[in-house]
Amino acid sequence: MSDEGFVWRRRVSFGDCDPARIAYTGRIPEFALEAIDAFWEDLLDGVNWFKMYTDQELAIPFVRMEMTFKKPVTPRAPLFCRVEPIALGNSSMTFEVTGSQDDIACFIAHFVCVFVTATNFGKISVPPPIRAKLESRFPALCNQVSKAGSCEE
Amino acid sequence: MSDEGFVWRRRVSFGDCDPARIAYTGRIPEFALEAIDAFWEDLLDGVNWFKMYTDQELAIPFVRMEMTFKKPVTPRAPLFCRVEPIALGNSSMTFEVTGSQDDIACFIAHFVCVFVTATNFGKISVPPPIRAKLESRFPALCNQVSKAGSCEE
Amino acid sequence: MSDEGFVWRRRVSFGDCDPARIAYTGRIPEFALEAIDAFWEDLLDGVNWFKMYTDQELAIPFVRMEMTFKKPVTPRAPLFCRVEPIALGNSSMTFEVTGSQDDIACFIAHFVCVFVTATNFGKISVPPPIRAKLESRFPALCNQVSKAGSCEE
Amino acid sequence: MSDEGFVWRRRVSFGDCDPARIAYTGRIPEFALEAIDAFWEDLLDGVNWFKMYTDQELAIPFVRMEMTFKKPVTPRAPLFCRVEPIALGNSSMTFEVTGSQDDIACFIAHFVCVFVTATNFGKISVPPPIRAKLESRFPALCNQVSKAGSCEE
Repeated sequence: MSDEGFVWRRRVSFGDCDPARIAYTGRIPEFALEAIDAFWEDLLDGVNWFKMYTDQELAIPFVRMEMTFKKPVTPRAPLFCRVEPIALGNSSMTFEVTGSQDDIACFIAHFVCVFVTATNFGKISVPPPIRAKLESRFPALCNQVSKAGSCEE
Repeated sequence: MSDEGFVWRRRVSFGDCDPARIAYTGRIPEFALEAIDAFWEDLLDGVNWFKMYTDQELAIPFVRMEMTFKKPVTPRAPLFCRVEPIALGNSSMTFEVTGSQDDIACFIAHFVCVFVTATNFGKISVPPPIRAKLESRFPALCNQVSKAGSCEE
Repeated sequence: MSDEGFVWRRRVSFGDCDPARIAYTGRIPEFALEAIDAFWEDLLDGVNWFKMYTDQELAIPFVRMEMTFKKPVTPRAPLFCRVEPIALGNSSMTFEVTGSQDDIACFIAHFVCVFVTATNFGKISVPPPIRAKLESRFPALCNQVSKAGSCEE
Repeated sequence: MSDEGFVWRRRVSFGDCDPARIAYTGRIPEFALEAIDAFWEDLLDGVNWFKMYTDQELAIPFVRMEMTFKKPVTPRAPLFCRVEPIALGNSSMTFEVTGSQDDIACFIAHFVCVFVTATNFGKISVPPPIRAKLESRFPALCNQVSKAGSCEE
């Protein structure tokens, strides 16, 4: 877990919890997704999924999600979701999201998403300005795709 | 709208929005409820609905909700929900919640809730320590119920 | 409550419930809204909000919601939501939604919505084919707006 | 995919969809979880997660979830979720959930859950009556755990 990871803090609400008095399993992916949306907003100067889709004809739908639940999430402490891009391909990328409360990991998730046009959902290369920002903040992502890597140029 | 109102800031997410590109109507009550839960947490030194229910055998279910929708909520700006208790009876109270973006009101809601025991949902008087904190921060609530008012004592 | 009301049956899930072991207050408006969406689908031969918006450039956003909660909703029985249009104006209409379990009313809600174009959310008259279907199934709605009423023609 | 799989039909609502006009990624796990809850209700004569937890001191929390998204889910057709238990251990089991619309798979998910007591979330063996019902309907599950298998007795 590098230092560059974006951390998003979220209140856990009574309504997020189920009768077992823990955040409902079905809410956990939503927490992680909100954190990824907030990650983009932070990286791209306020451009979140909504603005990408509405203003830039760009969408980044998910093709894969994996989550391991290690400890229940509760409203007794805030939830911190660390978001870190761990792979960057030509048109896809992978995020790791780690949710923690009181410095203990509650869940770890991996999400794979693909860049597409909003108009017809056709796959496209990662837009160069987005790739540049990702590689600048997360140098480990550079050169993962030979034809696309731009860090050393 | 007094100065004492509690204001809760919330990110609006892509997933909160529907195909009309605005926050889905069904999400708006959840925003307002989360704000009320955060209000209690702020007023009662961290005691939110979850802790009331789990640690103190106390619940405050709703019996009535009214909302007027004035302007769509979108992810283009944060949502600020101002929560103000506007009536305090023997065992019930009324909240006004105003949701705003860019200083323009998007919705105004009223919620009526009743204090009950968590064990059997039987109605109880507002617990004195909670009444005291409410009346201290919101003096207009004092003496609304003659037998219960304690501000001038 | 007339016989003509549309009734929508819905499973109540573990995830709909909060730590108090009842459906979370914030979920109840979603139940009622889903029932109204299903009402349209039934009345308009499969045309729900999604198809209206996407295929017909039509939207029917809400301007007002009122709910009275009478009894908790639980996963112990299915929820039946009766949807009945009770007022039809030139460009707006009002729904009453009654949610019941085991033949006992759990909540009663009123929703006011307005017909608009999907393109710019400008108010429009109720589209004649929709008015005709509404008045045909719910004769009490006829002539509520003198200039629009068409039942006796 | 055996014939024994339980299929749960669900309406997809306008409110399930995001601005990209497809069911929001964060909603898909909820669809799958609701289907598993409905699976139990069907297998155990009405005993769903709520009744297990509330009446039988039993809970089956998830430790792992994997989903592959193959095609967007939309409100244009009902969603059919086929639920099939594919592995049964001493205290854990694995479900495969396949979501389809118009006979085309939209997502495939795997969920691993563990049987625990509701009181302290301590791991327990699969309760014998539940194991018996699972093995009876899904013979492929028999003898997956040598000490627990009961089919041939």
